[in-house]
Amino acid sequence: MKKGTLYGIGVGPGDPDLITVKAVRVLNNVAVIFSATSTKNAYSLAADIVSSHLKKETPIVLLGFPMTYNKDKLSIAWEENARKVIDSVTKGLDVACITLGDPMTYSTFGYLMRTIKEKDPDIRIKIIPGITSYQAASASVGQVLVEGDESLTIVSGAPGAKKLKDIIDHSDNIIMVKVYHHYKEIIRTLDELNLTSKAILVSHSGLDGEEIVHDLKKNTDKIPPYLSILLIRKKG
Amino acid sequence: MKKGTLYGIGVGPGDPDLITVKAVRVLNNVAVIFSATSTKNAYSLAADIVSSHLKKETPIVLLGFPMTYNKDKLSIAWEENARKVIDSVTKGLDVACITLGDPMTYSTFGYLMRTIKEKDPDIRIKIIPGITSYQAASASVGQVLVEGDESLTIVSGAPGAKKLKDIIDHSDNIIMVKVYHHYKEIIRTLDELNLTSKAILVSHSGLDGEEIVHDLKKNTDKIPPYLSILLIRKKG
Repeated sequence: MKKGTLYGIGVGPGDPDLITVKAVRVLNNVAVIFSATSTKNAYSLAADIVSSHLKKETPIVLLGFPMTYNKDKLSIAWEENARKVIDSVTKGLDVACITLGDPMTYSTFGYLMRTIKEKDPDIRIKIIPGITSYQAASASVGQVLVEGDESLTIVSGAPGAKKLKDIIDHSDNIIMVKVYHHYKEIIRTLDELNLTSKAILVSHSGLDGEEIVHDLKKNTDKIPPYLSILLIRKKG
Repeated sequence: MKKGTLYGIGVGPGDPDLITVKAVRVLNNVAVIFSATSTKNAYSLAADIVSSHLKKETPIVLLGFPMTYNKDKLSIAWEENARKVIDSVTKGLDVACITLGDPMTYSTFGYLMRTIKEKDPDIRIKIIPGITSYQAASASVGQVLVEGDESLTIVSGAPGAKKLKDIIDHSDNIIMVKVYHHYKEIIRTLDELNLTSKAILVSHSGLDGEEIVHDLKKNTDKIPPYLSILLIRKKG
């Protein structure tokens, strides 16, 4: 039997209409939609975002993965999830895996794709890009991300402020994603590097309750929501 | 009279369906669509990309700007173009300025927006992000842009290979846009930095004639087309 195609689809940053026309078309032509989610809950923000664009009858299957750093546990979960996707594609079905933002940018889809390719190198995979949270944030703020001969670096705040120190003398613009867990350390580091006035905090970009903080000096004690990023424009 | 709104709209990397649902909706509700273009020709790739999504009757006005480094000439052109946009908005019309890719990422829209804000700070500007060329390239190649705790830096090859040398020890993944003019120098530098096997060249990403070159050692003498970018994954 001819195998189906796996589509890795970015659904954008939160506003349902910041999904591409192509993503909507493909999502309405697949047999199953998979969405990675934490095993702690049965909710998928990505699935929620696309729901208004979908035919009611397309099944959405949540691929649970544990919120752990235990590599063995993670590996077992990814194997099981990859197997579910491969089973559908092998039956000849076209399927989609949806992901918040863009599938190639800090997304679980990359891990799933690798696991699937290892298990079955012949599976046809097509990727449909999506608008990232930092693009939505820069659009909301109305501040350029990068222009002319400048550079732009995207770093993760998950390991703390280290990456910010690494890059600050080597890039004109910096985006720090995942600033929640080490927020106070990151804000302290911004201050040490004389960047507080160059930084803007954007939370829930493109979602309900979007918040933009221009003056971070006033907000050092308030921990922002989970989905928060920093835009830093050295020239700004 | 109540002023209209100016929408800065990214139309994506080339494939007409990689535009967002929101961009299509807004484009079909504005009175005029502006698109920056070179005064050398009367063609706008951005306008071409959106054409299939538009009502026939919406006028598309090209904003010519000279391909020069002469700041006075450029400044006059931007002033004139900004004035045209302001005139429409002041008449109460909602208008859009379209841009290839994303309006906040290496786009002429940033300059236009600044000029307009200087001339009339009260004009309401809303930005609708678009898929960038490097997202489309990474989707086509099926290679992750950035994941986990990694960093990603986007640099311009317009001034040559310098930015690549600046960043290479400080970022896990690098995208170099605008590699056309200094292609040979850039390829030589990749070799010096032992990056040739980590780099993939993508030309006309998402457009007709898309080309992906995995083995750059074989292609050092062939100058790629104008719209070409390099994806470098150090781990890759």
